[in-house]
Amino acid sequence: MVDLAYMSLTEAADRIRRRDLSPVELTTAVLKRIEEVEPRINAYITVTAEEALAAARTAETEIAGGRYRGPLHGIPVAVKDVVCTAGVRTTAGSRVLRDFVPNTDAAVVVRLREAGAVIVGKTNTHEFAAGITTNNPFFGPTRNPWNVDCIPGGSSGGSGAALAAGLCTVAIGTDTGGSIRIPAACCGVVGLKPTYGRVSRQGIFPLAWSQDHCGPMARSVADAALLLQVIAGYDPADPGSANVPVPDFSAELSAGVSDITIGLPRHWYFERVDPEVAEAVYRAVRILAEMGARVMEVDLPALRDVMPAQYVVCMAEAAAWHVPFLRSQPEHYSPALRGTLEGSLLISAVQYLDGLRIRARIAAEMEQALGQVDVLAAPTIPLPAPPIGQEQVNVAGQPEPVLDAFVRLNAPANQSGLPAISIPCGFSRGGLPIGLQIIGRPFDESTVIRVAHAYEQVAGWHRRPPPLV
Amino acid sequence: MVDLAYMSLTEAADRIRRRDLSPVELTTAVLKRIEEVEPRINAYITVTAEEALAAARTAETEIAGGRYRGPLHGIPVAVKDVVCTAGVRTTAGSRVLRDFVPNTDAAVVVRLREAGAVIVGKTNTHEFAAGITTNNPFFGPTRNPWNVDCIPGGSSGGSGAALAAGLCTVAIGTDTGGSIRIPAACCGVVGLKPTYGRVSRQGIFPLAWSQDHCGPMARSVADAALLLQVIAGYDPADPGSANVPVPDFSAELSAGVSDITIGLPRHWYFERVDPEVAEAVYRAVRILAEMGARVMEVDLPALRDVMPAQYVVCMAEAAAWHVPFLRSQPEHYSPALRGTLEGSLLISAVQYLDGLRIRARIAAEMEQALGQVDVLAAPTIPLPAPPIGQEQVNVAGQPEPVLDAFVRLNAPANQSGLPAISIPCGFSRGGLPIGLQIIGRPFDESTVIRVAHAYEQVAGWHRRPPPLV
Repeated sequence: MVDLAYMSLTEAADRIRRRDLSPVELTTAVLKRIEEVEPRINAYITVTAEEALAAARTAETEIAGGRYRGPLHGIPVAVKDVVCTAGVRTTAGSRVLRDFVPNTDAAVVVRLREAGAVIVGKTNTHEFAAGITTNNPFFGPTRNPWNVDCIPGGSSGGSGAALAAGLCTVAIGTDTGGSIRIPAACCGVVGLKPTYGRVSRQGIFPLAWSQDHCGPMARSVADAALLLQVIAGYDPADPGSANVPVPDFSAELSAGVSDITIGLPRHWYFERVDPEVAEAVYRAVRILAEMGARVMEVDLPALRDVMPAQYVVCMAEAAAWHVPFLRSQPEHYSPALRGTLEGSLLISAVQYLDGLRIRARIAAEMEQALGQVDVLAAPTIPLPAPPIGQEQVNVAGQPEPVLDAFVRLNAPANQSGLPAISIPCGFSRGGLPIGLQIIGRPFDESTVIRVAHAYEQVAGWHRRPPPLV
Repeated sequence: MVDLAYMSLTEAADRIRRRDLSPVELTTAVLKRIEEVEPRINAYITVTAEEALAAARTAETEIAGGRYRGPLHGIPVAVKDVVCTAGVRTTAGSRVLRDFVPNTDAAVVVRLREAGAVIVGKTNTHEFAAGITTNNPFFGPTRNPWNVDCIPGGSSGGSGAALAAGLCTVAIGTDTGGSIRIPAACCGVVGLKPTYGRVSRQGIFPLAWSQDHCGPMARSVADAALLLQVIAGYDPADPGSANVPVPDFSAELSAGVSDITIGLPRHWYFERVDPEVAEAVYRAVRILAEMGARVMEVDLPALRDVMPAQYVVCMAEAAAWHVPFLRSQPEHYSPALRGTLEGSLLISAVQYLDGLRIRARIAAEMEQALGQVDVLAAPTIPLPAPPIGQEQVNVAGQPEPVLDAFVRLNAPANQSGLPAISIPCGFSRGGLPIGLQIIGRPFDESTVIRVAHAYEQVAGWHRRPPPLV
């Protein structure tokens, strides 16, 4: 049963298609695992066991009747609880929306259902997805399956932990400053933030709409590519959606890296990073070089201004969105988030515009670097997941808030909108996963996926955490 | 000589091409007219007589040598003084830049020079193009050729007055809230604000970059189309530039209106308008209907929020741009503009974002209306040009600041980015021009031009103002 719960989407889909595995059997295994492990992990705010079993039975009937829909058909998927699900409570991790039951599905959920996916539940996150460290003041903290005293990262920490603990086959996350990639790195799984505009955010509660992304999380790159295939595509209902063709993201999966040039940033990404993390990332790049990739250094000096731009742009947009709720039910916010949002009402338009202008310079510089190389390689996070409740860490000898430490290497891909994946590239001495980040050209997720898959096949860092039951 | 100064670009280009008119003769006539009339009108901050004559002689030599470049070759053009001209002082109507001499031409000037145009001078405008009413605190007011006690409108009032007074053949203006169309309406000439992104703003001092447009002003629609042809096109150096094909804007000039549906807004555009202005616009629409156009009413209720959105978005962006100058040389601003900009530093990011969200709703509504009709017809300004120095007017019995009255019917096309032209459609009882505004679909300047030209041919409101010398 545990093996089923941990089965890759690629294998499960193949077996379901061949009727060698029943969606009901797979879903039952995942639900059983949730029942056993969830008390220790708390990855979900809501588990939809009955609906999931019904969906699995429908999938089984359809497939038995020859109506196979594709790789997601009958597959247990976890959905971050900022994504609206018709008839299923969608809290956004907040008390404000504690009892909110949407009438309609978010665009990505519509696509999942059309693909025959089985939604097993809504994963835990920070209050309104605003955070990276310990979640959640109302629904309790999610724990990292590699060390239950540590955070899973955020804000898609529930999805990351669910994957690492075998509580779903693939998962949906969202990412405004690293919230897909950070939990992927912390939990030793794969998280892919697509290009801005690639996946519709219609029906997803925003944090900062000009940097919000929705994307796939999985236990392998191939699985992430299959999930991205289902959720990608233009949607006029999302003002940020891009009307660009959607390629077959798995087509070049095994094309190798012999024609690839990897850019190693001279600036920012390796400047304040734990030596064991830097070492793991450099080792990964060496492996890719041994596989035939060319490696060259690139300059990214504008990144020094990442954090102030990230702060003013995101918090100004978050505050703008929250104004009506802050007015009508301030008492339903945690004091911390309420204070941050109310403080952000004072960000001036000129500061916001300065943030946008910094962001434009960063984006231009990154795109220029990606004119010389196919992808950039960097750490996802500068140190492994810290303990639950700890808000400050030491990075390379310097004290730093966890939030800043984790966001600063991820925000550039949000500010530039470039596609970026995090994949496991080793373990710390403390036994916690380390993440390798690969950033690509606009709408070139295919190359990001190809490089990540090539490394993954050789390095094979995909392991299961120690037993949780 | 006066007839030459008032000659249309269409006719002058035809005669220059046929070597029936010399660029030197034409330029000399315009410069002579400037010499005579400019003391009364003050349309120019800088007249570049010597450079113009040299350019005219070069054009003459080229054309005599069989190297005819096209319709702008040898044509006297006036350029608003916010547009950088290499080696020629570019003040932006300010004391801050009183002695600023750019090293390079703005993108539109590069295009003009490549087309062989003869730049006769830099036209007067408001301090940093921030205004509509009486210009200019440092360079003196431009006067309306139809009544020298009245304003020419703004902020491209110098260009509008220069056209009406025969001080150039065509002119360049810029438009953030009506600054091309308002002076065109006030001065009885044609002003075309193209689609946002159609004409590069590289090298033009910004007022509010998310709404700034550069465009042609002329004495006829056909002339404006020829000038737009030269300045339109993608420019990666302008972040707002759109990479879309540039059609032949004159191709459908005489195609008539029998296949055109004109939308008459039920909301906003006719709500607070002087009866004689509304009457002139309705009469113009009736004429177009008699020519075969279909007319239907359209709803635009979201426009009620135009002005707060216009204010916060434009003033926040203006303040952001001015911060360095406000810090380094506050004493060089007029007290009025300095006060406005310093006050705008207090606009909050949330207010700015609310402005953007209103703007998005307005744009969506206008584009939706333009799904039902080909163009919208409306007044450009709700009353004719007021006297110089007057900051308040009575519109349909209600007192209103001139700035608000003139901007409110123009800003929707800036906020939506839609192409909009103003053409003369009659005269007030006081003998001042009235403007008809025609707004089209994104990047469909051709239809706007076609409808405006059709009306112009039948209505023939193009007259010269009373003698100025």
